[in-house]
Parts: sequence; structure tokens; C-alpha cells
Amino acid sequence: MRYEEYTIEGRNAVLEAFRAGKTIDKLFVQDGCHDGIMNTITREARKGDTIINYVAKERLDQMSSTGKHQGVIAQAAAYEYADLEEIFAKAEEQGEPPFVFLLDEIEDPHNLGAIIRTANLAGAHGVIIPKRRAAGLTATVVKASAGALNYTPVVKVTNIAQTIEDLKKRGLWFVCADMGGETMYRLNLTGPSGLVSCNEGDGVSRLVREKCDYIASIPMKGNIDSLNASVAAGVLAYEIVRQRLNG
Amino acid sequence: MRYEEYTIEGRNAVLEAFRAGKTIDKLFVQDGCHDGIMNTITREARKGDTIINYVAKERLDQMSSTGKHQGVIAQAAAYEYADLEEIFAKAEEQGEPPFVFLLDEIEDPHNLGAIIRTANLAGAHGVIIPKRRAAGLTATVVKASAGALNYTPVVKVTNIAQTIEDLKKRGLWFVCADMGGETMYRLNLTGPSGLVSCNEGDGVSRLVREKCDYIASIPMKGNIDSLNASVAAGVLAYEIVRQRLNG
Repeated sequence: MRYEEYTIEGRNAVLEAFRAGKTIDKLFVQDGCHDGIMNTITREARKGDTIINYVAKERLDQMSSTGKHQGVIAQAAAYEYADLEEIFAKAEEQGEPPFVFLLDEIEDPHNLGAIIRTANLAGAHGVIIPKRRAAGLTATVVKASAGALNYTPVVKVTNIAQTIEDLKKRGLWFVCADMGGETMYRLNLTGPSGLVSCNEGDGVSRLVREKCDYIASIPMKGNIDSLNASVAAGVLAYEIVRQRLNG
Repeated sequence: MRYEEYTIEGRNAVLEAFRAGKTIDKLFVQDGCHDGIMNTITREARKGDTIINYVAKERLDQMSSTGKHQGVIAQAAAYEYADLEEIFAKAEEQGEPPFVFLLDEIEDPHNLGAIIRTANLAGAHGVIIPKRRAAGLTATVVKASAGALNYTPVVKVTNIAQTIEDLKKRGLWFVCADMGGETMYRLNLTGPSGLVSCNEGDGVSRLVREKCDYIASIPMKGNIDSLNASVAAGVLAYEIVRQRLNG
């Protein structure tokens, strides 16, 4: 297991965890606790993806393993990220051309989990996410990934555009789904490849889009702008699967 | 607009709304209100998809339009469902063979919204959901549908299996994605059709599966069991789109 959950108890420990950028999934706060440090803690929690539960002191006493919760217990998550070499090793081990997903600014944890799940089932060898401006691997992501996080390596990189450049030197080409490209059925999507998936609100960020070898257009017959990001990634991933099976 | 939001104020009115099965998205409860009827209200809220917010009396006073909130305000949603004839009329108007989505027991509102969004963009003429055991059209669904609910008619039926029978008499054939079927690329998915999508936890319910003309298998290369329900629906829907474009 690359993923584990643990709890943090007590006001200073919890506040420090938030300030250190740890992934806190849930916060349990004692009913009626509204002093200065507790307000700072709940303010930090509201900035992120943390769910705040106000509970009775008895509940905290039951949950506490130290007996010194001081009115607050946090549930945190830690994930051991992979590195790029693990992805290449996995592809080689399976005797396949490398196939990776790059997720640019996927902020919704349900989408992030669903895309990692798709990456696993579409036969991708790994998923690359940016360090900033993306959902972390919280409990929601883990649940939405339906176990895929235990099999599909996830790599965190500082700069997605730079990573695309580096991977191109190793023979990969890159495709993203966006409007204004060639219909995906007409592109040749076989060979070592990277599927770039983006935040549906903003579309593929300009810089990342420019780095892609192909812009694939998913046919749109309806009245609205775009598919959900995880659905779009799934549709494009399976066009790659279809072409690889036929090829 | 088929969808509207409104508020309900006061203890009895809010409790009655829950008991009448209305879709309550959010509940605002005054901090420190824990008497009998308020506890009954919050218990009802926890049974469903309702988000409970504990707020100061001043906040409720600001939100209140009647000035008589009695410590509780509910945000409710109402959607005007379509009937099956609207779907057929839409297909005829567009000069296309009918294409519908049937959603069997999709419980997650993010998935329900994402699938309605996919239905719109894949050119389906409507979405059919069961009256029971499915997410209602809450604010989360509306948000996840990204506006598609304003264009794609949604029909609520008592019995999905019976509806499949009725629609078969009108010339539709039905396909669902499930394990153990023929690979979707080998099926002929053109013509008037219904895509049956199911709760990923349980797979397609046996009765509904038996009613389907085709079981389509999505190639799975990974270690886990299944795609997210909205991703699976998207991948299968776009195989139908691909075949219709080629056909």
C-alpha cells in the first residue's frame, strides 16, 4: 500500500499539520470550542478540502488514542509518490510502449480519482500530476479511484510543460482533448503516448496545449460546452485503446 | 428553465417538506438549537443528501424573507420532469433515430450530473431515471450537469424494466456496459437505441440486464474491476457516436 491514513491530536499539532501543507481529510472539533487557536484551525480547514465535524467531547474522547485531544482531532492522509522511472519500468516489464496520463490542474477530487481509475483500466503505466493547483490524494480521491491508487503509480512534478519536454526526448508524443482540434478518430493515436487531461473550467492551459503534438476533438452534438473532465479523459483514453487493439 | 430553487422557512414547514419527500439541498440551522422538533429535522436531513449548516441567528435573519424562520431555513429544488413523448418529439424534430440514456440506480449525484452532461453532448434525445433508488435532481446534480439539464429532457419512470419493454415496441434496442459481454467495438450500435447505465457498485441489476439486447464489454487492461459509472457511460456513448458517424 502506497497510501495510509493517520490521526493528529491536539491544537498545536493540528495547526502545524495544516501549516506544513499536510493533507487533512477530516477535522473533528468539540462543540462550543470557539477560542482563538480553534478559530485559526477551522479557518485553515475551510481553505482546503477538509470536512469539519462538530462533535461532543465524549466522541473525541472515544476517538483519541493519546487522551490529550484538547478538543480537536484531524484525520490525515499520506501517499508515497512514485518517480518517472517507475512508469518506464512498468511499461518495459509489460512489454508495451509507455502510456501515461498527465493531469493538468484537475481540482475536483472525484474527477481525479475517476481519472486514475480510468488510467488503470485503459492500461496506462502511470499518472503524472502537478505539485501545485491540483487536488491532492485525499480520502475522497482514494475512494473515487476504487483501488487504482494501489496499482497505478502517481508521480508529482513541479512543471507539467517541462515534464512533457523531457518525456518527448524519450520518445513519447502528447495528445489533449480540446475544441478546435482534429476529430480524434482521424488521428493516429498508437505508439508511446501521453494523454493530457485538464481542468474542464479553463480548458487545457495555453502553455501545456502548445506542448502537445495533437489536439484531439471529441465530437460534440449538444448545447453545452464540454464533457466532465473525467468523462473526456475516459473517452479519449478509450479511443487510444481502440486504436492500439486494432493496430 | 425546468429547474428552480426556493427556500422554506420555519420548523413545521421544513419538517413537512422532508416528510413529503421534497428535495432539500441545504439546511441552515441556528447554532445551539437542539430541541425535539429540530432534532427530528436534522435526523431527516441526515437520511438524505442534505448538507446541514449551523449558523448564527443573524445569518438566518438576513436570509429570511418572511422574518419567521424559527431557527431553520431549508433550500429546496424543484425540477419539472419531461415525459417520454418529448424525447420522441425531439428525435423527430432533429431527424434522427431516437437515442436515450436509461440510468438504473445511479446514486452518486456527481455521476448523475456528469452522465446527463454526456447525454447532451453525445446527442441523446433524453435521459430516463427510475423514481426510486436513484439520486434526485439536487443542486449537486444540476451543477455537475453543467447546464445540460436545461436542454436534455429527463423523464422519471416507476419501472425501468417495463419502460425498456415499452420502448422496444417502438423500435429501440438496448445496450448496457457490463463484464462478460461482446467487446463493444464488435457490436453494431447504430439505429434507434437506449444506453443502459448502472450503479457501478452492483453492476447492472439482473432484471434490467436480461432486458437488454446487447451486453457491451469495455476492454479492461488493469487491476481493478470497473470504471466510474459516468466514465463507463461516456466511453460506451462515444462508441455509439463513432459508429453512427461512420455508418
